[in-house]
Amino acid sequence: MREVSIVGFGQTKVGEHWERSLRHLAGDAVLAAMQHAGIDRADVLYVGNMLSGELAGQEHLGALVADFVGLRGVEAIKVEAACASGAAAVRQALIAVTSGLAEIAIAVGVEKMTDEIGSSVTSGLAMAADGDYEAAHGLSFVALNALLMRRYMYEFDYQRQDFAPFAVNAHANAVNNPYAMFQRPISADAFARAALIASPISLLDSSPVCDGAAAVVIAPSQQARAFTDRPVRVAASAVATDAVALHDRRDPLFLQAGHDSAYKAYLQAGVRPEDIDLFELHDAFTVMSALSLEATGFAERGKGVALALEGDIQREGRIPIATMGGLKARGHPVGATGVYQIVEVAQQLRGEAGVNQVPGARRGMAQNIGGSGATIVTHILEAAE
Amino acid sequence: MREVSIVGFGQTKVGEHWERSLRHLAGDAVLAAMQHAGIDRADVLYVGNMLSGELAGQEHLGALVADFVGLRGVEAIKVEAACASGAAAVRQALIAVTSGLAEIAIAVGVEKMTDEIGSSVTSGLAMAADGDYEAAHGLSFVALNALLMRRYMYEFDYQRQDFAPFAVNAHANAVNNPYAMFQRPISADAFARAALIASPISLLDSSPVCDGAAAVVIAPSQQARAFTDRPVRVAASAVATDAVALHDRRDPLFLQAGHDSAYKAYLQAGVRPEDIDLFELHDAFTVMSALSLEATGFAERGKGVALALEGDIQREGRIPIATMGGLKARGHPVGATGVYQIVEVAQQLRGEAGVNQVPGARRGMAQNIGGSGATIVTHILEAAE
Repeated sequence: MREVSIVGFGQTKVGEHWERSLRHLAGDAVLAAMQHAGIDRADVLYVGNMLSGELAGQEHLGALVADFVGLRGVEAIKVEAACASGAAAVRQALIAVTSGLAEIAIAVGVEKMTDEIGSSVTSGLAMAADGDYEAAHGLSFVALNALLMRRYMYEFDYQRQDFAPFAVNAHANAVNNPYAMFQRPISADAFARAALIASPISLLDSSPVCDGAAAVVIAPSQQARAFTDRPVRVAASAVATDAVALHDRRDPLFLQAGHDSAYKAYLQAGVRPEDIDLFELHDAFTVMSALSLEATGFAERGKGVALALEGDIQREGRIPIATMGGLKARGHPVGATGVYQIVEVAQQLRGEAGVNQVPGARRGMAQNIGGSGATIVTHILEAAE
Repeated sequence: MREVSIVGFGQTKVGEHWERSLRHLAGDAVLAAMQHAGIDRADVLYVGNMLSGELAGQEHLGALVADFVGLRGVEAIKVEAACASGAAAVRQALIAVTSGLAEIAIAVGVEKMTDEIGSSVTSGLAMAADGDYEAAHGLSFVALNALLMRRYMYEFDYQRQDFAPFAVNAHANAVNNPYAMFQRPISADAFARAALIASPISLLDSSPVCDGAAAVVIAPSQQARAFTDRPVRVAASAVATDAVALHDRRDPLFLQAGHDSAYKAYLQAGVRPEDIDLFELHDAFTVMSALSLEATGFAERGKGVALALEGDIQREGRIPIATMGGLKARGHPVGATGVYQIVEVAQQLRGEAGVNQVPGARRGMAQNIGGSGATIVTHILEAAE
C-alpha cells in the first residue's frame, strides 16, 4: 500500500442555495478542487451524500456529477453513511489510490437541504436513526440528541449554559471563514436566551439546515508535488460503527465508535492525542462536541464540557476545535460536512487559514459522525515536510 | 495488488417478503454467506442498496446491518449506484481486500420494494434517471425503457414478439432455481398476449418489483482454500459511467458504459468475449438484454435480438444468459441484483447450478446496469484451478 496525499480541494459557501441544484453545488466544489490541483481528469469519483433521494428525488449521483463536471465515463459511485457520508467518500477515494487502482481520485460531499421537493428535512434526518425502533416512535434527530444532552447534564452535573463555549467558539471562528454560513459572533448571553428546539437543546446548540458541497483531490504522495507545493499527507483513515439505536448502546454517553476509529487512526499515524494540533470534530449539537472530545482521549469521561469551559478548545488552547466555524457556524450540509472538515484541516496544515490559523499546526484530525454515533470516521492529516 | 476470490455466498429467495424487514433480509443473506465461508468475523461490510430511504424511511444501512448480523463495531458503508448498487458494493469489497486494508470483506445487496412506507416504487425508481430533465417531466423508469425499445424496433426492424426469447429463456431457467421469484415457465404465446405496461413494453418484458438480498465473502486468493474447496477467482472488476439522461447520450441505442466497463474487464482478465462461458446480464427489460449483448461484443449493433431468436442465449447456446432466471424471473430487487448475478456466476463456476449447469463453465461474466445505462459494472469470475 502506498501513501497518499490531498493535492487540491474546493468548497462552496455553505448557505441557502435556492438558485443552485444538487449537481451545480457538487460541480462547483469538484471543479474548484480540480482547478486547485491543476487537473482535467481523474480515475474515480466518490460522491458522499445522504438525502438526495429524500429531498431532491435524485439518486445515482455518482454518474450524474461525473458527467456534469466533464468526467463522463469515469468510475463514479455514491457512498452513504448518514451524516458521515462525506468522510466515508474521502476514505473510499483514499483506498482507491492507496490500492494502486487509481492515480487520481476525487471525493465530493454534497447536500441540498433547504429545497424540500420530496419529504421534510426532519423526517429525512430521522433516517440516520433506527427507523423501526427510534423514528417509528416519533423520535426526531434533534430529540435523540436532546435525550443525550439531558442525560449528560444529569450524569455529570452541568447546566445548559455550560455548553455555551462550544457555540461561542464556533461562531467566533466562522467570522473570518468566507465559506461559513454564519459569519457573525454570538455571545454567551445570546446562547442563554436562545429559543429551545427540543429541551435542553436550543437554536444555538444546533447546527443549521443548509446547502453546500466540498471536494478533495487525492494522489500518491510520491507524485503529490507535481500537483501542489503544499501537499497534505494522509497519516490515518479509520472507520468504526456501533448500534444505530441509542438504546442498544452499552453506554449512550460514550461514543464507542468514536473511540475505536480514533485509536485505530492514532495507531496508524503513530501518534497520541497530545500530538494533534487541531481537531475538526462533529459539533452537530454541542453535546456531540463533548462526547467526541471524550471518546478521542482529549478529555476524561464527563469532562468534555469542562475542557470547553476552561478555554482549551480555542485557537490558542490545548486542542483547538471548529477552527473555521465547525458544523455549528460554518454549517452542516449533512453529506458534505465530512469533506468540509478535511478541507479545513488541510487549510490549517498549509498555513492558509488566515486569521484563524492555528499557530504551528503540523498535524490535524477530523472526525465525522453518522447518526447519534453509529458510524464514525476519523482522519489524521499531516503537513508535508 | 493481490488477487482476490469469492469464498462464500448467501441469498434469500426473491419475492414479496412482507414479514421481513430490510435488516432481516440483509441479515439472512449475510449470515448465510458467513456460514458458507465458515467465518464469524469480517473486516469491512459494504451494503448495496438504492431505495431504503425512499421506501423504508431508513438510511445508514451500513452500521444497521453490521450490528444486526453480530458485527457491531466493524467498518460498514452503504454504496449506491441506482440499479447497479449491488455490483458496486461487491467492487468496494474487492478493492478493500486487494489493497490489503482488509483480509475478509463482505458485500451484501438488499432491497425491499413491496412494502411502501414512504413514497411509491415508481417514483423511487425514477430517481435512477435524471431528476431535473427526465423524471420532472413525468418519465417513469419503464417509460424510458419503452422509448429505447420502440426506437430499437424502428431502427433495426423488429417486432415486439421478437423479444420473447429473452423472457422465455429466463423463465425456463428460473423453474429450477429455488431462490427465484417466478419458478414457472412462460410460452412465447403468453409473451405475445401479455398486457402492455408502457407500449411496447409488456408485463413479460419487465422484471418484477420484489424484495431480496444476496451476499458474498471476499478474501485473498492465497488464503481462499482455508474457507472453501471451491473458491471463485475474481479475474476482473470494472465500472464505467455515461450521461444519466437518455437524451444526453451520443447514441441512446449503444451502452457506451457497458462497452467500456466490459472491455476494461476483458483487458484485466486477458480474455475476449468468446472466452466467456456464461453471462449474467441485466435484463431489467428485454431491450436491455439486447443492448447489453451488443455493448459487450457478443452481438453486432442491432443483432442482440437476432442472437436470442437463433437460440444462442440458451444454456447450450453460444453465450448462455440469465442462467438462473435473470432479473426477469429470478427477480430484480434493485440494489441486490448485482450481488445475485455474481452469486449465480459463482454457483455455475463451482458446478453447483443443478439442472441449470452450463456444461464446462470455467469463466463467467456479470454485468449490472444502473439507470438506463449510466453506471455499468462488469465482473469476470473464473473457477479456481
